[in-house]
Amino acid sequence: MARPFIKMHGLGNDFVVFDARDDEFSLSADQVRAVADRRTGVGCDQLFVMEPSDKADVFMRIYNADGSEVAACGNGARCIARLVGDGRETVRIETLAGLIEGRADGAGAALDMGAPKLGWQEIPLAYAMDTLEMPVGWGMLERPVGVNMGNPHAVFFVERLDDVPITELGPEIETDPLFPEKVNVGVAEVLAPDAVRLKVWERGAGLTQACGTGACAAAVAAMRRKLTERKVTVHLPGGALEIEWREDGHVLMTGPAEISFTGQIDL
Amino acid sequence: MARPFIKMHGLGNDFVVFDARDDEFSLSADQVRAVADRRTGVGCDQLFVMEPSDKADVFMRIYNADGSEVAACGNGARCIARLVGDGRETVRIETLAGLIEGRADGAGAALDMGAPKLGWQEIPLAYAMDTLEMPVGWGMLERPVGVNMGNPHAVFFVERLDDVPITELGPEIETDPLFPEKVNVGVAEVLAPDAVRLKVWERGAGLTQACGTGACAAAVAAMRRKLTERKVTVHLPGGALEIEWREDGHVLMTGPAEISFTGQIDL
Repeated sequence: MARPFIKMHGLGNDFVVFDARDDEFSLSADQVRAVADRRTGVGCDQLFVMEPSDKADVFMRIYNADGSEVAACGNGARCIARLVGDGRETVRIETLAGLIEGRADGAGAALDMGAPKLGWQEIPLAYAMDTLEMPVGWGMLERPVGVNMGNPHAVFFVERLDDVPITELGPEIETDPLFPEKVNVGVAEVLAPDAVRLKVWERGAGLTQACGTGACAAAVAAMRRKLTERKVTVHLPGGALEIEWREDGHVLMTGPAEISFTGQIDL
Repeated sequence: MARPFIKMHGLGNDFVVFDARDDEFSLSADQVRAVADRRTGVGCDQLFVMEPSDKADVFMRIYNADGSEVAACGNGARCIARLVGDGRETVRIETLAGLIEGRADGAGAALDMGAPKLGWQEIPLAYAMDTLEMPVGWGMLERPVGVNMGNPHAVFFVERLDDVPITELGPEIETDPLFPEKVNVGVAEVLAPDAVRLKVWERGAGLTQACGTGACAAAVAAMRRKLTERKVTVHLPGGALEIEWREDGHVLMTGPAEISFTGQIDL
């Protein structure tokens, strides 16, 4: 049957959103792959189904383009917050990774991404070490900060981001046995006390235009190292996010969530 | 304003189709690029606007994803024939390259692609030579057949298609001064008297999943060399096309034209 959908993106990270809040339905992995195909389907990085939730305004089910289900997606949660939160003070989004609270904010949204986890077991790492300056290195990338923002990140600070061969080193670090759940690799250049440039090699996805949790992790890492203030603009290839590490320990991410078009597809 | 559109594909070559037959409008190059963007727009290889025609059932305006206007697109014309020709015996499509006659055929269409042009000035080549077996070569690709199917093609026959480094040789041949308007490079392996496997390095687009005029050119080339019968199935990476070189000299191309989804986008 023909299902309506909304195509959205946050900094070029793009999503197909179905609404199953009133009319519950589920998608098979084959259906997800068919919708996500950029030539014969709608095309997207991730697919979301908005489902009813007992605990929140909406349950956000998240599929990767390959049909697998994943727990969290920062850029995508801004899109859901914008859709659901329009006209509300706050919106609560339930995901497999937990509850996200946010609010629609013009053509975007602000999300409370929770408190980062900083212990070595929480990143997780394979063995104990200081996560503020990990005593390890891969080529020119050395001594990263470990941060878990719902998923594991290793953030490296460099003098010149453009000199770093991320597509070479990214997969090597991602799959290093030091990271038993693999790792997202952030490479950051501090531009000013309130500005960071960042590229992220995403676990399972490679170099992307924008990684929401990666921006949070890089901001937290910069603040832990006292390289920036508690509120920074993180400039990613796809655009900028505002990240604030509040005094209560929570990370607030503000950025765009745009509607590209609406459609109907036979499923 | 919100414009309705239809997303279609033929063998994975994908198109956004707008209908301006009753409500005439035109698109700027910026609008075309915005719609064609695979992350922030709808995404497509080419964008079509169906406009009124004095000479035919429809005028098919064709834009590349970069906003430039082009004359012809075989996979796309099947999509237009399916949309316009539904329920009609024949449909006539006007393009900048001339008139195409076709008919809707189930989930696809059959198109009269006209007669190939075979003279060296018509390919065009830079100087006179036999186009049935051109006395030239580039690495392992030698002695192609020259065929113009509304656009220039050089078709090479090889024993084993998979052994040919098309992404290396394709751009070299495409831009050789022998071809003053550049050339589409077809590499074909004859499987049987009624079957050919083909890959096409498309002028300006590189290696593609399926090239409609390339399939016609390869079939005509195989028939000129007496390698096949007058009706063949051409197997491209994206799927198969039936090509018949009729006794009246015209080439008939039959293949799929599928509707992926429908939508509305603000332009």
